[in-house]
Order: sequence, then C-alpha cells, then structure tokens
Amino acid sequence: MIFTETERAYLSTQRLGRLATVGPKGDPQNNPVGYAINDELGTIDIHGYDLGATRKFRNVQGNGQVSLVIDDLKSVQPWQVRGIEIRGRAEALTGQPKATDYTSPEVIRIHPHTVFAWGLDGSGHGMTKRTAG
Amino acid sequence: MIFTETERAYLSTQRLGRLATVGPKGDPQNNPVGYAINDELGTIDIHGYDLGATRKFRNVQGNGQVSLVIDDLKSVQPWQVRGIEIRGRAEALTGQPKATDYTSPEVIRIHPHTVFAWGLDGSGHGMTKRTAG
Repeated sequence: MIFTETERAYLSTQRLGRLATVGPKGDPQNNPVGYAINDELGTIDIHGYDLGATRKFRNVQGNGQVSLVIDDLKSVQPWQVRGIEIRGRAEALTGQPKATDYTSPEVIRIHPHTVFAWGLDGSGHGMTKRTAG
Repeated sequence: MIFTETERAYLSTQRLGRLATVGPKGDPQNNPVGYAINDELGTIDIHGYDLGATRKFRNVQGNGQVSLVIDDLKSVQPWQVRGIEIRGRAEALTGQPKATDYTSPEVIRIHPHTVFAWGLDGSGHGMTKRTAG
C-alpha cells in the first residue's frame, strides 16, 4: 500500500494530477495528467494520448526524478489547500498494454520514494512526510 | 502584456497554480501556489505563508528555472483539459512588501520566457506556444 486510507479516499475524488519532470538543462516542465494507482506494483501509472511523443516522456528517459502533485482548494475563506505530493523515480516504458482506446502504448511509471500530504484530515496546515517503497 | 485576452480571462477563473522547481540533484518538487500577475513588471509573483522557509524558495535560489501550470478539467466526457504552462526564470526575493497579513516578505518572481496554452478557445487539443518577454 503506497497510500493511507485517507489519502486513497482523497485521490478517488480527484481526476487530475500535475507532473513535474526535468529536462537536460535542469529545466522543469509541468503538465496536467490523469493517473492510476497500480496496486499490484505499488506504482502510479500515467498514460496519455501519444505519450511517447511528449517532452515529459523524453524528460523521464533522461532524468527519472519526478514529482506528481494532486491537490485542490478546499476553502477560499479561510484559505485551505489540501493535497498529496508524490516524489519518486519514474520509468518511461514502451510497448505496454493500452489503458484505453485513447491512450498510446507508453507508460510513465512512478515508483514513489516520498509522499507528502496536507490538509486531508481537516486539521489545517499540518504536513505529513513519509518514505514509501 | 504577458498574456492574451483569452488567457487573462481564463486565469481570472483559476485560483491555484502548481509550481515546479528543481533541487540541487535535479530533483523536482511540485506545489500548489497562489499567483498574481504583476502587470508593471511583466512577471508572475508568488507569495506565501513563510515562503522563505520553504524548499521551493531554496530551490529557486539554486536553480531559477521554474514551470508554473494553471489548468482545469473542462469536461470529463469528452475528456478536455485546458490550461496554461508558463516557463521562465525566477528570482527568490527577500524583504519585499507583504502582499497580505498572511504572507511573508519573500516573493518568487517569475520572468516568463515561454507560454504554452491549450483548450482555452474551446477548439480541443490544439496547443499554442510562444516566446514571452
């Protein structure tokens, strides 16, 4: 189990994550992505339309370090943001089973090493950090 | 003007962006942030609670390359994500005027060099890319 019950319940309410990858010059890019928890492998899998042709895929091929953040604004007044940041090492896989008719046979597979979570239990600003995997 | 009218209208509807920064080992982190368009300087300014104590602030001190993405899921069926990714060089400034009572006197000030936008005009998957600044 990568995630706690609370985290898993939260993730089930959110459809988009944002994936940060790093280019060859240490230049980050940041993109909205769908994501799937792969319970069998203990990974987060990212599929996409023509994923293999994207710069994020090439970035992962060059530097496997990634950060995926899933969050939302729970309240504006007071300002309360909640979410989960997953840092890990990703593989850029080709020739995988297609997840849907709309996605290509590549996968960015994240092996989490650190999970940060904040605001999920309604207690405000506190952040938890733990090592995963 | 950093942004087109369409982009500016979109940004006015979104409160959170996600800021990717890069650590000393090429390790990205990714965090939800509020943001403000600084029309006078042509920058995006990020304030925060105790911003100077955060790892993203230290990351910017070490590597000014950042990516800020502002996006949302316009439609699930069909799947339509829209948004703007702003890549640029950021300054980690101290001793600035406080934006609000709840923010500290530091600012991450992004000087955009490339702006990507997609889905804002309702035309689907097309992405525009342009050089800014």
